[in-house]
Amino acid sequence: MIKVAILGYGIVGSGVAEVLRENAKNITENAGQDIVVEKILDVRDFEDSPDAKLITKDPDEIFENRDIRIIVETIGGAGIAYEFTKRALASGKSVVTSNKELVATHGPELLQLAKDHKVSYMFEASVGGGIPIIRPIQQCLAANRITGILGILNGTTNYILTKMRLEGKDFSDALKEAQLNGYAEANPTADIEGHDSCRKIAILSSLSYGEMVDYRKISTVGITKISLIDMKYAERLGRIIKLLAMSRKYEEGVYARVSPVMLPVKHSLANVEDVFNGIIVRGNAVGDAMFYGKGAGKLPTASAVVADIIDIVKHHEITKMMVWKLPVTNNVLDIRDFESFWFVRLEVSDKQAALEYVEKTIGNVSVVTLKGYEQELAFTTSMANEGFLLQAIHGFEGKKGIRQLISLIRLY
Amino acid sequence: MIKVAILGYGIVGSGVAEVLRENAKNITENAGQDIVVEKILDVRDFEDSPDAKLITKDPDEIFENRDIRIIVETIGGAGIAYEFTKRALASGKSVVTSNKELVATHGPELLQLAKDHKVSYMFEASVGGGIPIIRPIQQCLAANRITGILGILNGTTNYILTKMRLEGKDFSDALKEAQLNGYAEANPTADIEGHDSCRKIAILSSLSYGEMVDYRKISTVGITKISLIDMKYAERLGRIIKLLAMSRKYEEGVYARVSPVMLPVKHSLANVEDVFNGIIVRGNAVGDAMFYGKGAGKLPTASAVVADIIDIVKHHEITKMMVWKLPVTNNVLDIRDFESFWFVRLEVSDKQAALEYVEKTIGNVSVVTLKGYEQELAFTTSMANEGFLLQAIHGFEGKKGIRQLISLIRLY
Repeated sequence: MIKVAILGYGIVGSGVAEVLRENAKNITENAGQDIVVEKILDVRDFEDSPDAKLITKDPDEIFENRDIRIIVETIGGAGIAYEFTKRALASGKSVVTSNKELVATHGPELLQLAKDHKVSYMFEASVGGGIPIIRPIQQCLAANRITGILGILNGTTNYILTKMRLEGKDFSDALKEAQLNGYAEANPTADIEGHDSCRKIAILSSLSYGEMVDYRKISTVGITKISLIDMKYAERLGRIIKLLAMSRKYEEGVYARVSPVMLPVKHSLANVEDVFNGIIVRGNAVGDAMFYGKGAGKLPTASAVVADIIDIVKHHEITKMMVWKLPVTNNVLDIRDFESFWFVRLEVSDKQAALEYVEKTIGNVSVVTLKGYEQELAFTTSMANEGFLLQAIHGFEGKKGIRQLISLIRLY
Repeated sequence: MIKVAILGYGIVGSGVAEVLRENAKNITENAGQDIVVEKILDVRDFEDSPDAKLITKDPDEIFENRDIRIIVETIGGAGIAYEFTKRALASGKSVVTSNKELVATHGPELLQLAKDHKVSYMFEASVGGGIPIIRPIQQCLAANRITGILGILNGTTNYILTKMRLEGKDFSDALKEAQLNGYAEANPTADIEGHDSCRKIAILSSLSYGEMVDYRKISTVGITKISLIDMKYAERLGRIIKLLAMSRKYEEGVYARVSPVMLPVKHSLANVEDVFNGIIVRGNAVGDAMFYGKGAGKLPTASAVVADIIDIVKHHEITKMMVWKLPVTNNVLDIRDFESFWFVRLEVSDKQAALEYVEKTIGNVSVVTLKGYEQELAFTTSMANEGFLLQAIHGFEGKKGIRQLISLIRLY
C-alpha cells in the first residue's frame, strides 16, 4: 500500500481524493497495489467533506511522516507551493502537481532536486488538464526530434471566443457567463491576458526541446481587445479567431508566442470549441500528432494527477530522468525578426487617401469590406518582416486620411 | 550501449533502422545511452541498402547473441513471427512489434511469456502508426475506468472514402489510386473488408478493459459496398460515411463492431480525412480524449517502435506489468441485442405500397429523396432492436412493391 498526501484541498486537490476513492479498483489493478490518501493539508475546515478526518493544518504531520511517499501539490502559485515542493523532494518524497506556474518558473531546479534525491517530480496535469500530453511528448515521441508545437491551451478563453462567435455575446458578457459557469475565475487576468497559455507553451517547449524556455520572454497577447466586429471580418475571410500558443525550434533558438490568430476554418484547431483544448505536436518522424479533449475541470485534471502517481508507484525504483538544461544565453528568439501577415482595421476620414498611404508604406494589401462598416478601412497585409510591419502599422495613426488603429490581429 | 536486432527488413523494419540512425542524438539523450542495430534478419538481399552489412539469413546469429537485448519484430502475420517472438522472449530478450495480427491473436500468451521471463513485449506501433495511443491508454488514463473507444483506425479505407466523397471517384478507382500511392497493398482485403480495423479495436479494447477481446468475435463489415450514390444521400442527411471501429464496456461484457457509418458532419471524427486516423477514448474521469495523426507510413510507425525501445532501455529493470486476462467465457456481446438505426435504400416497383409495407413492418421511417433517384425508396429508420430491424429489412425483398435491397448503412 502506498500512502500519499495532498497539499491544498481546492478543486483539483479534492478531485484527486475523489478519483483515488471512486476508481480505487482500477487504480489498484493498474498500479499493482493500493494507493491511499493519508493526510490532506489545508488551512480551511471542511467538516462536510468525505475527507474531513484526513485534513490537517500542520505541514509537519505530512513531511515528517516517513510512510508518506508521494505528495500531491495542488496549492498553485510559486510561493508556499515552491517551499513545500522543495521540502518534499529534499526529504525523499516524490511530488506530483498540476501547478503550471511553479513548473514554468522553477521547473529545472525542481527536476534537478528530484534527480539528486532519487525521486520524481511529475506534472502531466499542468498542461491540457486530463489530456495526455506531457507523457506522450516525453515517451511516445521520444524517437522524434520535435520541431514545433501549436495549440489551444486555455479552455476559458476558448469558451469565451466560442460564445462570442456562436451566440453574438460581446467579450464582457461572454466572460461573465464563463465565470457563472465556473470556467473563469473571479480574477480572470491570467486566462484572458494569455499568461496561462504562455506558461503552458513554455512547459511544453522546454520538455520538447530539452532546454528551459523562459515564459517571461515569450511574446504574449490576450483576447481582451477582440470584438464581435473582428469576428464578423474573420468569418468574411473564411477564418475563426482563436487564442493560439505556439513554438518552433530553430538551430539558433526557440520561436514562441501566444496571441489571438485568425485561423482558416479548415485548420484542425478551428473546430476545437468551448472549454476544449487541442494540441498539435510536430515530430520529424511522426509528422503532426494532435491531442484533443477537455483542458480543464476537476475530474479530468485530477485523473492526470493520479496517472502520475500510478506511474511513480509502478516505477518507484527509477528516477524519471527528465531534466531541462538551462540555456547558456537567452534562447527565445525575437519574433519581430520573422515574417508574418496581419488583419488590420483603421478608422479613416478619407478612405482612398488612407489606402494609398498604407500601400505606399507596406506594399499591396487586400481590402476587406463588411456590410455596415464601409466607412472604415480593413485589409489583410502581405507576408513581411514582423518588426517592420508592426512599426509601420502603429505609425499609421494621424497620417493621410487615417484617424486611428481599431484592430490588429495576426493571420495564420 | 544497447544492441537491438530487427526481424524483417520491409517498410517498417527499414524505417526503424533509419530512425535509429537519423535521430541518434535525440534518442541517446532520451534513452540515456546509445541504441545500435547489431543485426537484421531477412531472406532477401539488400546490397544497395545502408544496412546491407548488418543483414543475415541465419536467425541463430541473432537469438544466440547474448549481447542483443531487444528484438524488433516487423515480419508481420502470425506464422514465423509468432515462433520468433516466443523464442526471443523465452531467451530473455524484450520484443517490440508493429504486428497487429500477432498481438490480436496471441497477445495474452506473449505478454505472459514476457512477464515470466522478466522482459517486455511492447506494441505501440500496432495501432495508429505513429500516433501515441497504447501508452496514453495504459499510462496516462490509468486513473480512469475506460468505458468506450471510437475511432477511424485504418488509413487506407479512410483515404478511399475521402477520394470518393471529394473527387467523385468510385470505389474501385479510389482503391487503384490508393494502391498507386502506396497506401493500399496489392491484396487490399485486410483493409477494405475491415479486418485491419477489427484487429486494432480488439487490441485497444483488450488493453482498455483489461481482458482479451477476441477479434474473431467482433462483427466486421468493410467498405466494398459503399457507392457514390450512398455518399450523396449521406450529404443530403448532413452526414459523412466513415469506417468506424468502436467498443463499449458493459457489466456483462464488451460491445464491439467495425462498420461503415453515416456520421453527422459535426462529429469530431467526420473531419478526419485521407490517411489520417482519429481515436476517441472515453474515461469516467477524463471524459473524451481524442488522438489524431497519420495512422500509417514508414517513419511514423518506425518512430513508435523506437519509442518502445527507448522505454525498455530506460526501464530495463522493470517488467511491464500489462497482462490481459483471458475471459472465462465469451465476453463479446451479440450486437443484435442492442438498439441501432439505419439508412436503407430499396429498389421498388410501387413506391407507395413499398413504403406502407415498410412502415407496417418496422414502424415510422423518414423518407429521403435525392434528385435523379426518385424512383427508389430511401429512408432512415427509427432506433430499434438491431436483430429485429436487420431481419425485417433483409426480409423486404420481393414483398409488396419492393424488388431488392440496394444499400444498408448504419447511422450514428
